[in-house]
Amino acid sequence: MTRINRQWRLRRRPEGDIADGDLHLVESPVPALGAGEVLVRTLYLSLDPTNRIWMSDMDQYMPPVEIGEVMRGGAVGVVEESADPNVPVGAIVAPMLGGWQDWHLTPGGMVRQIPQVPGLPVTAFMSVVGLTGWTAYFGLLDIGQPRPGETVVVSAAAGAVGSIVGQIAKLKGARVVGIAGGAEKCRWIVDDLGFDAAIDYKHEDVGAALDRHCPAGIDVNFENVGGPIMDAVLARMNNFSRMPLCGLISTYNDTGARTGPSNFQQILMKRILVKGFIVIDYMPRFEEASRDLATWVLEGKLKYKVHVDQGLENAVQSVKRLFSGDHDGKLLVQVSPEPGA
Amino acid sequence: MTRINRQWRLRRRPEGDIADGDLHLVESPVPALGAGEVLVRTLYLSLDPTNRIWMSDMDQYMPPVEIGEVMRGGAVGVVEESADPNVPVGAIVAPMLGGWQDWHLTPGGMVRQIPQVPGLPVTAFMSVVGLTGWTAYFGLLDIGQPRPGETVVVSAAAGAVGSIVGQIAKLKGARVVGIAGGAEKCRWIVDDLGFDAAIDYKHEDVGAALDRHCPAGIDVNFENVGGPIMDAVLARMNNFSRMPLCGLISTYNDTGARTGPSNFQQILMKRILVKGFIVIDYMPRFEEASRDLATWVLEGKLKYKVHVDQGLENAVQSVKRLFSGDHDGKLLVQVSPEPGA
Repeated sequence: MTRINRQWRLRRRPEGDIADGDLHLVESPVPALGAGEVLVRTLYLSLDPTNRIWMSDMDQYMPPVEIGEVMRGGAVGVVEESADPNVPVGAIVAPMLGGWQDWHLTPGGMVRQIPQVPGLPVTAFMSVVGLTGWTAYFGLLDIGQPRPGETVVVSAAAGAVGSIVGQIAKLKGARVVGIAGGAEKCRWIVDDLGFDAAIDYKHEDVGAALDRHCPAGIDVNFENVGGPIMDAVLARMNNFSRMPLCGLISTYNDTGARTGPSNFQQILMKRILVKGFIVIDYMPRFEEASRDLATWVLEGKLKYKVHVDQGLENAVQSVKRLFSGDHDGKLLVQVSPEPGA
Repeated sequence: MTRINRQWRLRRRPEGDIADGDLHLVESPVPALGAGEVLVRTLYLSLDPTNRIWMSDMDQYMPPVEIGEVMRGGAVGVVEESADPNVPVGAIVAPMLGGWQDWHLTPGGMVRQIPQVPGLPVTAFMSVVGLTGWTAYFGLLDIGQPRPGETVVVSAAAGAVGSIVGQIAKLKGARVVGIAGGAEKCRWIVDDLGFDAAIDYKHEDVGAALDRHCPAGIDVNFENVGGPIMDAVLARMNNFSRMPLCGLISTYNDTGARTGPSNFQQILMKRILVKGFIVIDYMPRFEEASRDLATWVLEGKLKYKVHVDQGLENAVQSVKRLFSGDHDGKLLVQVSPEPGA
């Protein structure tokens, strides 16, 4: 039986917002298994702001996706065929280089096997105990280094990373203020996740709200967004404060000249540490983070939300949610059913 | 005998460039010595970019100078009268809070005594073995952390701090490229100070010159200037590079909205560490730096230049040189003759 692989391929680089036709869905047969290879049926795609970076040719931390290539992205699947004795059929795995497609044919050594842990579904390993959880963990603890009683601000606070950042900061004894879009997100991070305060940037003056909620200034700004929200936070940062720079999603769709923070001088005057990071920089320490994150989840101290859209064919519509904010927590696309489902 | 103290006082905050009349020279009698006080005759004023910051009401690391107050600034003088047994008459001292004036009347505990070392004149302690040397030392070694073979770029490279930064980087085995204004400054830092290359920002395209002189990219950017020069350097920084943020002199005279670096995203993509600092943050470690710096100077491994203008009455004209670049190395104003001179 010849299997058909649907693949989203980049047709042209988006100008500004992602538009219909920037990617197209192409079908091709899945080649036969080679020596040492495994064939993985995709269960879920992870949709992340970095997808938009890779679609562009801006300066970035990996090569961009070339025109005509399969769209790169995190994925998890189940092994359906295996020519690698270390990777059994039925294993749940994450290919090192995932893509937006039905099938991944890859050397067995290029997949990470995902453990089966009661209480931790596959989607947990694609969010809180996966790349997004690790991003929050290392950015906050390694760069931000919040001390008990300090004030931590996080933008995109109801997002996959931000929601975890705030909860870890609380576990470390900090006061946490989240910036999110809309009353329901703000309610969620305060009432369900335990943030001390939330600022609804769509309906509030962020600067005035920060003044109200951060009377002792800001010690850590976990930056996901950039633009005017970052400016407002930067203006209120304390001497010797820290700013893990995780993302600048507000600027990824920009066309034309970008401008940096209008108060860049603050970094000098307040002796702020700004450090860009990408989670893969911490690969040697992923296990350490997974241990802590899984423990916190199983103990009920760390909550997470996943938004699952259905169908590979909807991936392009789905990824746009990252820019409109029309989702909560981690954004996934389910491509095929989990085994036993 | 009543001594008259001439003092430069801030009359109004400069708008853009410092203008005549922003400060005025006022005379007042020197009060009698109180218990524990010392009277210091000013020998030299240190003129530094931070003077301009203190004249403004921009967000800054110390309170600005208030209208009507004596202009704050580094100074060194000789003790003429003393009511503090620990501070003898004739000692050369730096008041903790210096100002642009003929006399400093201050508690003896608020002065730092400057040692008399053959081969190190008073002016060395106001430059290479003083605040500017310490600034270079800690910014480069503590934040920049250049490794042998790495490429270090420094802006304002013929300035008081930049010229020391480049030489220390060479002593640590790095390749050093300086950015300075004018052929003579560029000649000086390469021929006399041993920089590997110089870029004349007044007559060259800085980006193209950086491409030529930094074929392996930039690992450390010691930033003194900001603006388009910083943008050009930032665009060429390597993964995991470091940027000690020491000054942004190109922006201190700005009126209206400032804009940050146009390629702020680079900090994220290249995982750059940016850290603002002020030399006084390192006060507990000044002795460590002085030991190294003095040793290097006495061994002939570290050169420095001072530009000395004469007369307190010329301090305002003199400080403008920092913005025009019309001086080399450390800028001082001599207020009165050294003892024995």
